[in-house]
Amino acid sequence: MYVSHCHQSYHGGMARWEPDSRSRLEQAAMALYAERGFDDTTVAQITERAGLTERTFFRHFSDKREVLFGGAGALQDLLVGAVVDAPPSASPIDAVAGALDAVGAMFADRRAFARVRQAIIGGSTELQERELIKLATLSAAVADALRLRGVGDPAAGLTGEVAVAVFKVAFEQWVGGADPRDLTQLMRDGLDELKSVTSDA
Amino acid sequence: MYVSHCHQSYHGGMARWEPDSRSRLEQAAMALYAERGFDDTTVAQITERAGLTERTFFRHFSDKREVLFGGAGALQDLLVGAVVDAPPSASPIDAVAGALDAVGAMFADRRAFARVRQAIIGGSTELQERELIKLATLSAAVADALRLRGVGDPAAGLTGEVAVAVFKVAFEQWVGGADPRDLTQLMRDGLDELKSVTSDA
Repeated sequence: MYVSHCHQSYHGGMARWEPDSRSRLEQAAMALYAERGFDDTTVAQITERAGLTERTFFRHFSDKREVLFGGAGALQDLLVGAVVDAPPSASPIDAVAGALDAVGAMFADRRAFARVRQAIIGGSTELQERELIKLATLSAAVADALRLRGVGDPAAGLTGEVAVAVFKVAFEQWVGGADPRDLTQLMRDGLDELKSVTSDA
Repeated sequence: MYVSHCHQSYHGGMARWEPDSRSRLEQAAMALYAERGFDDTTVAQITERAGLTERTFFRHFSDKREVLFGGAGALQDLLVGAVVDAPPSASPIDAVAGALDAVGAMFADRRAFARVRQAIIGGSTELQERELIKLATLSAAVADALRLRGVGDPAAGLTGEVAVAVFKVAFEQWVGGADPRDLTQLMRDGLDELKSVTSDA
């Protein structure tokens, strides 16, 4: 069966080459995860709704979980790249602050998507575990990028943890509530709050 | 078969009541995990080596993984209790610093055990995931304890993350290297380092 529920191809049928197949699979998967729950959604259901084959699905994603974590690599590359490329004079925390600004810009128009994704992840222990692994990997990658800048230990490891802590807490505020601030501002305010908290001894 | 490899009962045989059965199971399990790897060790092998029954094993642990995480509850209770019981005048970071001192004291004579445990966990993706979940749960529990003290958000969430970041980085130094400092000192120095890092903007 080859019926698309949420997609009308402008070719009037299925083209052999599908330039937007990845995003169509993402949209179909997210809609199904939100409707039926992650555990009860199959790859066959995703491809049916997207009007694509399972072979196409597995060309883009290793499994149905990776639809939700496909952006993790780009997020890490962005953070690491911004830390590495920060001016030589920048302190570790300044390098991280600049990297978080870049991350905020990347997410600027994705709040609705992020909210749906967060709700899906909150409903599955397996996905929460995967999310924790993603964050721990990010923290380690930022620490390694700082070491490339000549930052020693434990400063590099701690600053990597700080970067992810600020991102995580701000992200939860951004997707969770009615806070009018954008993600960039929430992360800047979080970093200021962290400075205030740690100096308050 | 009922031969114990690492335990000589002082009753000269198997007592019906085994006051030290939990620690015997722990020791047998840790030795086997280190020798054979976590994945290739069965509960049957653990109980055989400890000279105890599987029924006794499952009275103490839900599965073979929990042998390595049985202390997580005590660690969390200690951290949370110390935060809640800190003097009313203590700042959030001071409350956390006091709690980390208590944690350092708890681990003081467990460095050899911690090293074996860390090596076992490093060899298994499943265990690394479980460790990340433990740390995330700790962070959330510390944040909740701070909220009970009237600390607002995002300060509570950020300080919870800081507590676990300092613990995690110091713990890795403590078990990993030849650093002569004890865990308490490493965490105090880590917290100072974090203050220095975050103020260096």
